Amino acid sequence: MSSIDKLTEAFRHFPGIGPRQAKRFVYYLLTKNREHLEELSNLILEIRRDIHVCSFCQRFFNGRAQVPLCPICADQTRDRSLLMAVEKDIDLENIEKSDAYNGRYFVLGGTVPILEKEPERRVRSREFLATATREMGAGNLKEVILAMSVNAEGENTAEYLSGLLSPLREKGLRISMLGRGLSTGSELEYVDSDTIKSALTHRT
Amino acid sequence: MSSIDKLTEAFRHFPGIGPRQAKRFVYYLLTKNREHLEELSNLILEIRRDIHVCSFCQRFFNGRAQVPLCPICADQTRDRSLLMAVEKDIDLENIEKSDAYNGRYFVLGGTVPILEKEPERRVRSREFLATATREMGAGNLKEVILAMSVNAEGENTAEYLSGLLSPLREKGLRISMLGRGLSTGSELEYVDSDTIKSALTHRT
Amino acid sequence: MSSIDKLTEAFRHFPGIGPRQAKRFVYYLLTKNREHLEELSNLILEIRRDIHVCSFCQRFFNGRAQVPLCPICADQTRDRSLLMAVEKDIDLENIEKSDAYNGRYFVLGGTVPILEKEPERRVRSREFLATATREMGAGNLKEVILAMSVNAEGENTAEYLSGLLSPLREKGLRISMLGRGLSTGSELEYVDSDTIKSALTHRT
Amino acid sequence: MSSIDKLTEAFRHFPGIGPRQAKRFVYYLLTKNREHLEELSNLILEIRRDIHVCSFCQRFFNGRAQVPLCPICADQTRDRSLLMAVEKDIDLENIEKSDAYNGRYFVLGGTVPILEKEPERRVRSREFLATATREMGAGNLKEVILAMSVNAEGENTAEYLSGLLSPLREKGLRISMLGRGLSTGSELEYVDSDTIKSALTHRT
Repeated sequence: MSSIDKLTEAFRHFPGIGPRQAKRFVYYLLTKNREHLEELSNLILEIRRDIHVCSFCQRFFNGRAQVPLCPICADQTRDRSLLMAVEKDIDLENIEKSDAYNGRYFVLGGTVPILEKEPERRVRSREFLATATREMGAGNLKEVILAMSVNAEGENTAEYLSGLLSPLREKGLRISMLGRGLSTGSELEYVDSDTIKSALTHRT
Repeated sequence: MSSIDKLTEAFRHFPGIGPRQAKRFVYYLLTKNREHLEELSNLILEIRRDIHVCSFCQRFFNGRAQVPLCPICADQTRDRSLLMAVEKDIDLENIEKSDAYNGRYFVLGGTVPILEKEPERRVRSREFLATATREMGAGNLKEVILAMSVNAEGENTAEYLSGLLSPLREKGLRISMLGRGLSTGSELEYVDSDTIKSALTHRT
Repeated sequence: MSSIDKLTEAFRHFPGIGPRQAKRFVYYLLTKNREHLEELSNLILEIRRDIHVCSFCQRFFNGRAQVPLCPICADQTRDRSLLMAVEKDIDLENIEKSDAYNGRYFVLGGTVPILEKEPERRVRSREFLATATREMGAGNLKEVILAMSVNAEGENTAEYLSGLLSPLREKGLRISMLGRGLSTGSELEYVDSDTIKSALTHRT
Repeated sequence: MSSIDKLTEAFRHFPGIGPRQAKRFVYYLLTKNREHLEELSNLILEIRRDIHVCSFCQRFFNGRAQVPLCPICADQTRDRSLLMAVEKDIDLENIEKSDAYNGRYFVLGGTVPILEKEPERRVRSREFLATATREMGAGNLKEVILAMSVNAEGENTAEYLSGLLSPLREKGLRISMLGRGLSTGSELEYVDSDTIKSALTHRT
């Protein structure tokens, strides 16, 4: 296999990339000079060296190996009574961008498909339960927000986590989910019945 | 102009129909026999004869001319303390389908574009204000729900109506809007900041 | 069923129209006055009265019942040595628009699906064979052009018709198909191998 | 800027990639182990080392630095009387895949936009003219095929090259273009007039 084919094959595994676009990436790189390629090559190596997993929220962050916490988790002004579980790093970033939340996060690293028999292999559920238990014991945590996407897999994940946390709920932990309603762009003509119900309940 | 061209032209003005599809409609009809065309022709005439405008909510309904109220408005079990303003008939039908609302409606017949100088020409605002005033005077009405789509024109319409009703608000009328939040299919990665804010505020 | 529902149902059978758009058509008509609806209603009746099937090419045309030929077939300047078979009226109109063809047409009224056992029920094959035989006998016809779309069903139709005409081919009739090649908008990167082959063969 | 942001920025310049997908690429790589990243990093460096530009057709190929010709150009069985000019490497590969062409190629490296004043900066026109002149002088070349995409820029490029080669045309070089016609998937109803004209001219 030629170098072009090998690199095409590597790009093919990038999320959302088919064989044709993978090859176009390679030809794009072929038009670049040595410096450009060396820089890209180094950036790819560096993310492994520079990026660490936060020991609290499990997200990737840029830092030194001896610093265990990401800037959000290290920030003493964040509200420790709130812990929001999200599926992946990009969800967390999108919520941060909204400036609407000042608690802490936990990145699950995935979702639980319907009928999955070993959900703990899909999401960091053991670490999540341990974190919630410890933070509650320390008197910090009052509420866990299960911030999943509104689709079958997201709802299944929320249900699974909700069951997992039920011993903590009995001890007073609030377990909440993001509110449903009309989102930006919703047209009344097309909105589904579940969303209309929530939108009526939460009318303001 | 031939009959084919004339009918094509008429279909072209149907919502969402371009010249090509309009012509395809005509050729489709040409394959039908006389009875079929007469039936379609009659159905078109009948909607004018059979369909009336409800004297309360202003929507179209199937009934006899001497019956002024549509079945919803005539229904004595509907909650008269609630009045929901919607843009158009199809919005009303979609909300009815959700089985989540038991109040009455008012169909505005349109929306108010940004910078429109004569909004009362776009929506039945005078009739709406008169209806709300009368129902409030009769001791029925407690709340008006402005159920607009979540886009610039919908929000502009809600703002206009809200201003129009402000004398009634001072007399105790509640003016509300449908709640914002995650709607069915929302993915956390893509949700806009406004929706995240509402979803956090209304978490359940 | 209400008049709205009945008319919605009728529009649902229009080509390419789903239930939601069908209902939108009805509400669009409800906003029109009586004159508008009467005019539309009449136009629909008129196409049956004014539109006839050409006794030669079988297409619909606007004319009086006693005139058997459409303007194209009646035109003495059209080249009678050429007969182009097309699937439907709109194909014929599109070819006329190109101003590239001066022969006559025959509208098949459909295509022959793969594995169809009774192809003569899908296309006017008997009338087509009769027309070609008669025109050839009269010394007019030299070539039949099978102008089908380039897809499985079009190719199957062309193959079926080609077999049907084979006795005439033996007597000297030319049977041709539209040339393959790059069409407007084709990009070399995406063109399929068959098209490349034809484009190379027919290079100019 | 963090390593994540830097690498995201680099991926953003890949063809067809927006900021969101660029970031998703980075998170995808973060889930990979060190070996995987080192391999990808090496593949990127290797394409510069292993891939050379063919001294005849100008395309990229996998080989040793001391080998000047790509396998196609080195192949003695290819027909030297034909030279096909294509825009880019991927076009060449697509034509090779069709197995319909046995001549040689020349990769122009781009197209000439309408109204471009310095077309020689957009395509390797000087090298192309030199190659054609030399090959014609050596008694090899009989025909140049300008295999451009069928759009405004492709046609402009072909026109420019055609003018450039006109001295050679006067000496007997044939200059051709790929044939126009129905391509796979063309439907008669939608085909433009130019394509219909060509399809009729080239009917088979």
